[in-house]
Amino acid sequence: MVTAKVISIGDEILIGQIVNTNASYINDKLFSIGVQVKKVVTIGDNREDLFHELHDSMQNYDITLITGGLGPTHDDITKPILVDFFKDELILDEEVLVKVRSIFESRNVVMPETNLGQAMKPSRSKVIWNDNGTAPGIYMEEEGRVFIAMPGVPFEMKAMMENSVLYLLKAKFLQNPEYVLRNKTLLTTGIGESFLFESIGDLNELLQGQKMAFLPSPYGVRLRMDVKAATDAEAEEEITRIEKGLYEKVGEFIYGANEDLLEKTVGDLLRDKGLTLATAESCTGGFISQRITDISGSSEYYKGGVISYSNEAKENIINVDRNTLVNYGAVSIETTVEMAVGVRKIMNADVGISATGIAGPTGATETKPIGLTYIAISIGDKVYSKELFLGDNRHRNRIRAAQAALNMLRKELLLIK
Amino acid sequence: MVTAKVISIGDEILIGQIVNTNASYINDKLFSIGVQVKKVVTIGDNREDLFHELHDSMQNYDITLITGGLGPTHDDITKPILVDFFKDELILDEEVLVKVRSIFESRNVVMPETNLGQAMKPSRSKVIWNDNGTAPGIYMEEEGRVFIAMPGVPFEMKAMMENSVLYLLKAKFLQNPEYVLRNKTLLTTGIGESFLFESIGDLNELLQGQKMAFLPSPYGVRLRMDVKAATDAEAEEEITRIEKGLYEKVGEFIYGANEDLLEKTVGDLLRDKGLTLATAESCTGGFISQRITDISGSSEYYKGGVISYSNEAKENIINVDRNTLVNYGAVSIETTVEMAVGVRKIMNADVGISATGIAGPTGATETKPIGLTYIAISIGDKVYSKELFLGDNRHRNRIRAAQAALNMLRKELLLIK
Repeated sequence: MVTAKVISIGDEILIGQIVNTNASYINDKLFSIGVQVKKVVTIGDNREDLFHELHDSMQNYDITLITGGLGPTHDDITKPILVDFFKDELILDEEVLVKVRSIFESRNVVMPETNLGQAMKPSRSKVIWNDNGTAPGIYMEEEGRVFIAMPGVPFEMKAMMENSVLYLLKAKFLQNPEYVLRNKTLLTTGIGESFLFESIGDLNELLQGQKMAFLPSPYGVRLRMDVKAATDAEAEEEITRIEKGLYEKVGEFIYGANEDLLEKTVGDLLRDKGLTLATAESCTGGFISQRITDISGSSEYYKGGVISYSNEAKENIINVDRNTLVNYGAVSIETTVEMAVGVRKIMNADVGISATGIAGPTGATETKPIGLTYIAISIGDKVYSKELFLGDNRHRNRIRAAQAALNMLRKELLLIK
Repeated sequence: MVTAKVISIGDEILIGQIVNTNASYINDKLFSIGVQVKKVVTIGDNREDLFHELHDSMQNYDITLITGGLGPTHDDITKPILVDFFKDELILDEEVLVKVRSIFESRNVVMPETNLGQAMKPSRSKVIWNDNGTAPGIYMEEEGRVFIAMPGVPFEMKAMMENSVLYLLKAKFLQNPEYVLRNKTLLTTGIGESFLFESIGDLNELLQGQKMAFLPSPYGVRLRMDVKAATDAEAEEEITRIEKGLYEKVGEFIYGANEDLLEKTVGDLLRDKGLTLATAESCTGGFISQRITDISGSSEYYKGGVISYSNEAKENIINVDRNTLVNYGAVSIETTVEMAVGVRKIMNADVGISATGIAGPTGATETKPIGLTYIAISIGDKVYSKELFLGDNRHRNRIRAAQAALNMLRKELLLIK
């Protein structure tokens, strides 16, 4: 197996000011091409620590990826240290100089002297072009081991990874791989981790030696299948086989895969069926509308919503009957239904969706505990509603209620011809 | 200076499935008590790599903090490896056994056999009690160096850090420190990083050898002051001095400090002044209402809002004049003002706030570019409004518009007697 170490250089990480998201991005990308990241190290921008890590790399890892320490300023330490460590020398790369200079010219600025350093590279290295900035990356091979240095700025590093680094590594190490790795994540919601586990049944029988991780969050549990096979085709087959097994057992809870967004799926369904939507939110306070309008083009199907946080707003604006509020309370199936019907009417929309509940930590009564939540959908001549018992964390309850409402809407839209 | 290394054990981090937020939390806490984290390492749950890291720690760091590898399951590797490395032995801690057993009893469950292992500890170690779970932490001292192992579950680890670990480390290393470190972060919004930098003027004169970082995000730029001094009192003085200088130069852009939330500040102001609020949102689509209602107790001052995404909703529900929409357009100062006034009226609130704009990537016209945004506030017999030119990223524009609206509201509320 091809192994890798990732080195992040950055004092901001060491003092806890920023989270090392670069490393998780790189790890994910390397994993996806079948490289095993065995270690991630963060160090400050000092010579001694980087030297120590390069020694360790020469003994233990096929690939070493370094981020940070490649800027125009004083903390540009990576290149000089690579040169010293590998007993190489810095030379000027004319092509890079022309490109860096032209970037400054295109901004109508004369290139500062400090940027000259960016055109220097170790003589035995290749330059990796930076599509999003002026500091190029460095690729070196020493005794069959690969060393790659990239800037620490996330969007510069990511473009380099996707446009160059992954191809270079595949060409070097993965031309004739012994096996391929594939993964796919199914997104579930509306069922807890342990119930999902039980519903799936005999995992070993399903996986037949492949792997799967349960990844819970307030939005639902993601099921990540990690498959290893001799060829691409076999890996695809394995993914398909496991996916089919999961759909048979827990298909009703699966709403998408990989990077799918529930609000995008719902939006696409509304557009396809030529329907418009209106929202009435109490406990979710705008979580539903905010997610729907996060999708560009949502104005095609989203007419608007009401945050009916007070009883007054429920009564005066979306026309919930005062008697309903008095007899059943603001958190009741009856009120939720009238909210969905009412907002649909005043917004002149085809579909109305509503949520009301006790998000906590205050607001519980003798008969209504924290976490009690109702959602409803008004569509055609039907109204669908649901009672949920969520947890005791306000923030999570709001996320879970919005997620449940959007998923209920998705399911009802799927039933419409 | 007291130095530390942080070791995270976890395959999920190495394959890029989760971000290492534990490390950034620990780094921040250690920095706050004056410990310098020199290295952060993530490894898989295997014996060889942890052994290698323990060797390195015995040579180079005063403190080594380990998270992960302390569960009831098969990947409980940390304790056996510590025992082997330090040539110690595992013994049963009766007190821990009683406590773990009682946790299960309180859940009406018999303790599974696998949890017996959690009551075992290296004979030369002290146990660190876990307030949020069953796996205790381990504290060992070997040749003057400290080794601490904690679970990888964030909320268990955090409680251990705050309730025990920081005290233990202070008692051991920081009884008579050579100097103290303090930091404080001021939160600004409504001004870009470079303009902020220019407005502050001569940084060296202001800082006099102390440090400050500019940390930009769509919510605004945070200014983190890092101060080093001989005593607590002197450190406080330095923070106060720099803070005063910043307020003199850019005070109008500062809305809070450290973990302050703008929506909480605005909510407190509304409550103090006995005022109620209503929101009318177009481009922000619920971002403002969602933030306001994220604060527990917001129902005391928040009456509700309208997401007037369509012109129809603007006209029919919050009574924006059709002529205004036709003559000036939905994205105009005139419409925004009528939205704030209208929503305040229909919600029977004391204050109305509104936002409308072109979030992008579509929707631009010849005269109205992407990012053009208007916000308005109706309060008493006055209306305040503002034109903003934001960027070309939909998601960031929505965040920035909501932030600008809330900050404008904060400023106006401060002017009210």
